[in-house]
Amino acid sequence: MTSAELFKNIQLKKSFLCVGLDTDFNRLPKIMMDSEYPLFEFNKRIIDATSDLAVAYKPNMAFYESMGTAGWMSLELTVKYLRENYPDLFLIADAKRGDIGNTSKMYATAFLENMDFDAITVSPYMGADSVKPFIQYKDKWIIILALTSNEGSHDFQMIFDPGANMRLFEKVLTKAQEWGSIENTMFVVGATQADKFKEVRKVAPDHFLLVPGVGAQGGSLEEVAKYGLNKKCGLLVNASRSILYADATDTFADSARMEAEKIQQQMAHILESYHLI
Amino acid sequence: MTSAELFKNIQLKKSFLCVGLDTDFNRLPKIMMDSEYPLFEFNKRIIDATSDLAVAYKPNMAFYESMGTAGWMSLELTVKYLRENYPDLFLIADAKRGDIGNTSKMYATAFLENMDFDAITVSPYMGADSVKPFIQYKDKWIIILALTSNEGSHDFQMIFDPGANMRLFEKVLTKAQEWGSIENTMFVVGATQADKFKEVRKVAPDHFLLVPGVGAQGGSLEEVAKYGLNKKCGLLVNASRSILYADATDTFADSARMEAEKIQQQMAHILESYHLI
Repeated sequence: MTSAELFKNIQLKKSFLCVGLDTDFNRLPKIMMDSEYPLFEFNKRIIDATSDLAVAYKPNMAFYESMGTAGWMSLELTVKYLRENYPDLFLIADAKRGDIGNTSKMYATAFLENMDFDAITVSPYMGADSVKPFIQYKDKWIIILALTSNEGSHDFQMIFDPGANMRLFEKVLTKAQEWGSIENTMFVVGATQADKFKEVRKVAPDHFLLVPGVGAQGGSLEEVAKYGLNKKCGLLVNASRSILYADATDTFADSARMEAEKIQQQMAHILESYHLI
Repeated sequence: MTSAELFKNIQLKKSFLCVGLDTDFNRLPKIMMDSEYPLFEFNKRIIDATSDLAVAYKPNMAFYESMGTAGWMSLELTVKYLRENYPDLFLIADAKRGDIGNTSKMYATAFLENMDFDAITVSPYMGADSVKPFIQYKDKWIIILALTSNEGSHDFQMIFDPGANMRLFEKVLTKAQEWGSIENTMFVVGATQADKFKEVRKVAPDHFLLVPGVGAQGGSLEEVAKYGLNKKCGLLVNASRSILYADATDTFADSARMEAEKIQQQMAHILESYHLI
């Protein structure tokens, strides 16, 4: 998918919501437990209930891998279901991979070729050759960790490099622009650090940013929008647990829709006030 | 496995070799192609041919994930086969994971609980809470990326932090010692940067180091040993492609053994000259 197509979907749906499929077997309603692929069955219900309110879905690999081969099958079935039934959605593999070149190439095969995700999240620690194999595919994307939403993000990402006169996360934002373009590179910037969006936008004004941390992690959508929006929206804001587990009973899909709708309506309001629709 | 048990195995086998199971479907001898789980069948042959020469095995997740559900099954079968037939081996999941706390916990479940690996490689970019969930298990290990063997390692790992008076990789080595101990934490240090081992040992004299980059990537075992050995060996040196693909014909297992034996004999010589056996 191109950035123009993504922006068009955002305008059509008045939403820049990404639904994070952090599907935890231990939190599924009892009714799902008996099916052969409970993670998939749950996802299907969540997707059907929210697909008109979101522009992107982001399965989190850890949750599928923790269920072994059956989990991996649920992941494949989920991506296939999304592709076949909702071809306009942007699909992100939240994998945070990154290894030496020949290994990154294998991860790229797994996620961008075989499973046909549009994008994969990538850790920058190992540098250029760990990232580049993912951007050899037309209209596919890498989403590089820059400034994450968790407490530990301060351990290394804020280190100041006097040689470059910038902090590590800014150096990642800068270096990555030598490797790819705004047509194949996005960055992860956590909503819990909304005050940093201004600084991120100084270095990467035109890139799309994937923003976790709204909802269960406590980030503010208004704050993120204020400093993070650009003239093509430039934001995909993720919510996972607050939508998936809005309700632990059989009515979980309706509750997920209500929760997603709440966010989508906030987003529609934001897009209107910034004259993006 | 404890570090004492690992050192005992190193002394018994006169080897600190880790065989990297970077099992690439496209490089398998034709004879393997017809089996249901070709990656597993190949691994089994490699393991049987080399298990007395190595102390550790390290399947590389990317290669299994690139084969989808069947690949994941091959991975599970490989670990089960190793556990049942060679209980003294140290098993490393080369996964380079790392995410926010609740997600890292899921990866820990996948690799350290369900599959019963002894250790998992972890990327430090997201800091403390992305790493800590992996060291909640008795006698299980994290192996944190510090200074990697690839060209891109220079992009970020060498950034100098004047506040801490050290480079990023040294800061990772230092910070990680606040999170874990020499009984549950190792570091990845690439053999292609042998001159850096002296500096690594200043900060982390007693930790085990996992050393990729010998063999196909060109690192020197003697150089690594010279600066990297400590009084309990403290090194696991990995070789993958040079062993796995020593021979592309049906005699691949014999050739793999010959290649592994060559390295093991060098290692025996090194351990003797440093009076470690």
